[in-house]
Amino acid sequence: MATTTGNASNDEAAKPKVTLFWLDQSRAQGMVWLLEELGLDYDLEVYRRVDGLAPPEAKEIHPLGKFPVVKVNDDLFAESGFITEYLVDNYGEWLKPKDRASLMRYKYFLHYAEGSFMPPLLVGIVMQGVKNAPVPFFLKPFVNMICSGVETKYLLPNYKTHFDFLESEISQRPWIAGEEFTGADILLSSPLILMKGRSIFTQGNYPKLWAYTEKLTERGAYKKAAKKTEAMEGDKLF
Amino acid sequence: MATTTGNASNDEAAKPKVTLFWLDQSRAQGMVWLLEELGLDYDLEVYRRVDGLAPPEAKEIHPLGKFPVVKVNDDLFAESGFITEYLVDNYGEWLKPKDRASLMRYKYFLHYAEGSFMPPLLVGIVMQGVKNAPVPFFLKPFVNMICSGVETKYLLPNYKTHFDFLESEISQRPWIAGEEFTGADILLSSPLILMKGRSIFTQGNYPKLWAYTEKLTERGAYKKAAKKTEAMEGDKLF
Repeated sequence: MATTTGNASNDEAAKPKVTLFWLDQSRAQGMVWLLEELGLDYDLEVYRRVDGLAPPEAKEIHPLGKFPVVKVNDDLFAESGFITEYLVDNYGEWLKPKDRASLMRYKYFLHYAEGSFMPPLLVGIVMQGVKNAPVPFFLKPFVNMICSGVETKYLLPNYKTHFDFLESEISQRPWIAGEEFTGADILLSSPLILMKGRSIFTQGNYPKLWAYTEKLTERGAYKKAAKKTEAMEGDKLF
Repeated sequence: MATTTGNASNDEAAKPKVTLFWLDQSRAQGMVWLLEELGLDYDLEVYRRVDGLAPPEAKEIHPLGKFPVVKVNDDLFAESGFITEYLVDNYGEWLKPKDRASLMRYKYFLHYAEGSFMPPLLVGIVMQGVKNAPVPFFLKPFVNMICSGVETKYLLPNYKTHFDFLESEISQRPWIAGEEFTGADILLSSPLILMKGRSIFTQGNYPKLWAYTEKLTERGAYKKAAKKTEAMEGDKLF
């Protein structure tokens, strides 16, 4: 793949100027973690939700107005899977498997996390919004009935399929792609942490996946990122 | 990236044994098109929806029970973006840009199509299901009210953001990644064709994107794939 700097990580030329555009309560947290794992210096530009949504000025950064967005030198990157792929390819070869089978799984999971796993979770978030929307009290049972319908027919079967799949995958190896921790583990962490402790994803239902999620959050770079995130969730810049 | 066969397309060793697991009314259509563009021989295993969903036996092919799935020699591939990336890397270098800027866009759009563009369309499909679910007639106005709420607050702003973005992108170059047609154009075709003609995506609203979508469906390989698909939508195998 084309790179601007190559992989000579000791070389001054390989030290990119990185800016992470960050939003509270978003998948940007995973990017802080990735940058910590890579040991890259980076600036943070902090954005905050307004009424639960990314602020309109986010579209000045990237036309979709979504986070995370990462600027590396003169290139602007969106899509978590692509950002991870690019940063690892260029600045963190040790976060990419060497053997073919693990590499294939790594590449698969870079697409799976956002392409397959997140969409039903997104439907769940939208339905949660419907459930919480203000309606006259006598209509509330009916709103709940509609939401339960989507839950029973669509959400729960989909969640089950994904969690069964991930439990089976993580039972076969220590990390999601293979013997070593990779960028795919970071990418998968956001939806797993989001769902951890909800009724579908308990320690009893998916013990191996639960242990894996705990193992993810025990890494030094994760803890460092979590501390930074915690501090940022506190102050208000935009 | 690791490959089993290299790129020597004239070499007998480079002729993979390919099977496409196909579902009616799904993104598997794009994969038929990709295989036709690549000029690869492939077998088709046809599955059919039951009550609008993929049949349960699909999980015997891949644990997520989703389509498309492609088998190349002994490897099973899921995730449209990853399947496209793999097939193009190994059997269709001409469907991948050469210059860095186009290559970066190509890789971005391989993630964007499923990671960002499809999810709101999926929410739309789920809400369509809610709208069509059988309820007593006197509750129908209320179901419509809930669906309109999701439409106004979530769907329409999201659709607009994506279509504005794509209109702007395709105004800057002949194909989505650059000067040449690539695998990213194929991947983007499914959601575009799905939405073409609906009230959000008309020729009047997005003239450049409309013309681009028409141009996609005028390619020889697309037409060949469409003809195959048409024939398959007709007969019943599973």
